[in-house]
Amino acid sequence: MHGNREMVGEMTGKHPVNKNRRVLVTNVKILPMTGPHDFIPEGFLVIEGQHIREVGSGKPSLVRENGQIIDGKGKLVMPGFVNAHTHAAMTLMRGYADDLPLMEWLQNKIEPFECNLTGQDVYWGTMLGIAEMIKSGTTTFADMYIFMDDVARAVEETGIRAVLCRGMNGVGPNAEKALRESRDLASKWQGKADGRLKIMLGPHAPYTCPPPYLRRVMDLASELGLDMHTHLSETMAEVETIKKEYGKTPVAMFAEAGLFDHRVVAAHCVHLTDEDIETLAKNKVGVVHNPQSNMKLGSGIARVTELMAAGVTVALGTDGAASNNNLDMFEEARTAALLQKARKMDPRVITAYQALEMATVNGARVLGLDQEIGCIKPGMKADIILIDVDQPHFHPPHNLVAHLAYSAQASDVDTVIIDGKVVMQNRQLLSLNERTVIEEAGRVALRLVEGGL
Amino acid sequence: MHGNREMVGEMTGKHPVNKNRRVLVTNVKILPMTGPHDFIPEGFLVIEGQHIREVGSGKPSLVRENGQIIDGKGKLVMPGFVNAHTHAAMTLMRGYADDLPLMEWLQNKIEPFECNLTGQDVYWGTMLGIAEMIKSGTTTFADMYIFMDDVARAVEETGIRAVLCRGMNGVGPNAEKALRESRDLASKWQGKADGRLKIMLGPHAPYTCPPPYLRRVMDLASELGLDMHTHLSETMAEVETIKKEYGKTPVAMFAEAGLFDHRVVAAHCVHLTDEDIETLAKNKVGVVHNPQSNMKLGSGIARVTELMAAGVTVALGTDGAASNNNLDMFEEARTAALLQKARKMDPRVITAYQALEMATVNGARVLGLDQEIGCIKPGMKADIILIDVDQPHFHPPHNLVAHLAYSAQASDVDTVIIDGKVVMQNRQLLSLNERTVIEEAGRVALRLVEGGL
Repeated sequence: MHGNREMVGEMTGKHPVNKNRRVLVTNVKILPMTGPHDFIPEGFLVIEGQHIREVGSGKPSLVRENGQIIDGKGKLVMPGFVNAHTHAAMTLMRGYADDLPLMEWLQNKIEPFECNLTGQDVYWGTMLGIAEMIKSGTTTFADMYIFMDDVARAVEETGIRAVLCRGMNGVGPNAEKALRESRDLASKWQGKADGRLKIMLGPHAPYTCPPPYLRRVMDLASELGLDMHTHLSETMAEVETIKKEYGKTPVAMFAEAGLFDHRVVAAHCVHLTDEDIETLAKNKVGVVHNPQSNMKLGSGIARVTELMAAGVTVALGTDGAASNNNLDMFEEARTAALLQKARKMDPRVITAYQALEMATVNGARVLGLDQEIGCIKPGMKADIILIDVDQPHFHPPHNLVAHLAYSAQASDVDTVIIDGKVVMQNRQLLSLNERTVIEEAGRVALRLVEGGL
Repeated sequence: MHGNREMVGEMTGKHPVNKNRRVLVTNVKILPMTGPHDFIPEGFLVIEGQHIREVGSGKPSLVRENGQIIDGKGKLVMPGFVNAHTHAAMTLMRGYADDLPLMEWLQNKIEPFECNLTGQDVYWGTMLGIAEMIKSGTTTFADMYIFMDDVARAVEETGIRAVLCRGMNGVGPNAEKALRESRDLASKWQGKADGRLKIMLGPHAPYTCPPPYLRRVMDLASELGLDMHTHLSETMAEVETIKKEYGKTPVAMFAEAGLFDHRVVAAHCVHLTDEDIETLAKNKVGVVHNPQSNMKLGSGIARVTELMAAGVTVALGTDGAASNNNLDMFEEARTAALLQKARKMDPRVITAYQALEMATVNGARVLGLDQEIGCIKPGMKADIILIDVDQPHFHPPHNLVAHLAYSAQASDVDTVIIDGKVVMQNRQLLSLNERTVIEEAGRVALRLVEGGL
């Protein structure tokens, strides 16, 4: 079940795109995510270079003489998942600190672990995260962390798509460094890796970014034309801290500082007033719901149905593996739907289709990538996944959308194509060596737990 | 990925147990579920006939000359899951009715579908459920449905363990039939299939079993020495109905009717007063929590932490696939833990180990089977599963218990042994033909949706 070493060189994202490379997927069920009633029971899909060229039912009209043919029999193709908020390298801390109070988790476990991290450690942690993400059908992830140069390197090599930002903490010792590194990150990586990389600024959260620092971040965003990715209203403690310091909610504090004059994607948004929701809607702030992380850390349950009713685009993220503990977007979509049904005591809220939309289209939208990815239609980048729907838990086939939202699991993903390249087939990772990644990440994690550098 | 037809005859549970059959599992990590600190990083397990004979670290002292050897390298062995409340044949309705209000779901979709069911339909639906359950590591399930003779037949053939009851509705047209069929079920199947079958009585719920009918059910239970399995306090509507009719809560109504003088396993228990919890604890009623079903139907969130604090044994169930929509106990354990952390806004409640306990040991306990199954130690029945823990989402191996509770998925189960027999190996089902089951269940579901008999 490990990557084929010989393939790695050939498949790596470092090689320029072959504009003529063709992939034809035949005999496949197609869920394009272009609308709740769009479904092709048996069709085909033509990929040329990075793009989807043709989508149709039946057989393709043109006989294709070159290119790879993938038989989609027994499979369903849909857009790859967009994990709109994570910290991929935190796979290194998976299972390292569970069932603990938030501050104990953060201060006694996560921070001491993180303070010994090197760039190479982050590279291997990110590689492990990417291996897991591709294996569970994620084709784009939005990441906030440190040593982002090494994260970008992992993205470039593995062929995945990513939106990266360097976490910026204005009250810690690295406030200046974060500004500098963010600038460098953008100048080095914006639009690179065949356009698979987008760089944002990452003002960490209201409680780590006071208005004067926020001002400098916004100036940099304006100068470089960058969007922003932040954490917002994650815990009750945060809301109380900000209220005490500024006399307003975190959302209001950000709004009044002018942050929402920029395009902002805000993770969590668990504790919101009605007025906060109105502010987020009016300013078109993209919200990333992280249901499993919010549950696991005891942060609470976000008011997702109210956000949606107000017109806010709500995407999904796994958050880091230290608080989830996997990067599985099937679970996240399912949990998002079930959790709101439980919270509202109403089985009608967040339908199966809406849950899948949150995990695909909405992710693309909040990241400003909806002209490129998030659904299957000609002209879009070919970021797609083939799911093996011929297994007991997909039968009877009354409703495949419901099965995908409520019954599927990560391992049902058989084949993953990103930017037109096949990066996984028959569950074999082709753009990285799974064995090496597991071993190197394990070595790093062991060293960090033992406390040494 | 389908069952090997030639093996089916040999593996079927209809054949008597070979007391000398030996299986040796070597080089395996062992999580025996005998206590939170019990773990063998590398050990072995000897199975003879139906039982676990030896469990140890390192290599077995005795060279075994006969029997099957399973190399456990890269795998972890733990007790199989106990799905303590389900309706297996309802896999036929998977995805048939989602995101609907409870009564519309029940009256317009589920009941019309069910009223055309035949025994053979229930057989195929149960077979599909069993295929899915074995593939996700469930080795025992507790089922309440109709045509239970056909359910028993599926259990006997596939080698799984089950606790069966005929759902008894005292206010419908089949009140007498249910009593008669329950008696027949016990006389025909109690202790059969090498002891893999246990029969209970299934008084359906407080709102379908008024006290006079309940009296007759209890008399039958006393006469035949049977335990009981029921639904209790699932929805607010139920609580209101019962309060209006009897002036007391469903728990109090059952208690005062004398039901709890018997051993009772009660599914759901979502809406409970403090007094109800005390009543359940005092009477040693086993509670089966069904978090995903309760969420999906918008029933609410059970007070699991309070039940546990009161000393109630809380097990887990998936409920039927019409309201879940799979039979995956990994998900159920994870959701149980996360949901309470969210509800209590406290990450410490329901630890990873407790979640696994709910899915194994506690299931055995509420079903009265804890002398036989639920943990791994010499003398217990050999109901065990081998999990492939050498995959990205199990790394780094900081804490395998946390990984199993918070990161694992159903398909990580590689091998399943029930009652000493290997019923799945390398994810190949050996005691049923997966392809036939999928096709037959599909045929049945299609006919029922089209409304014909």
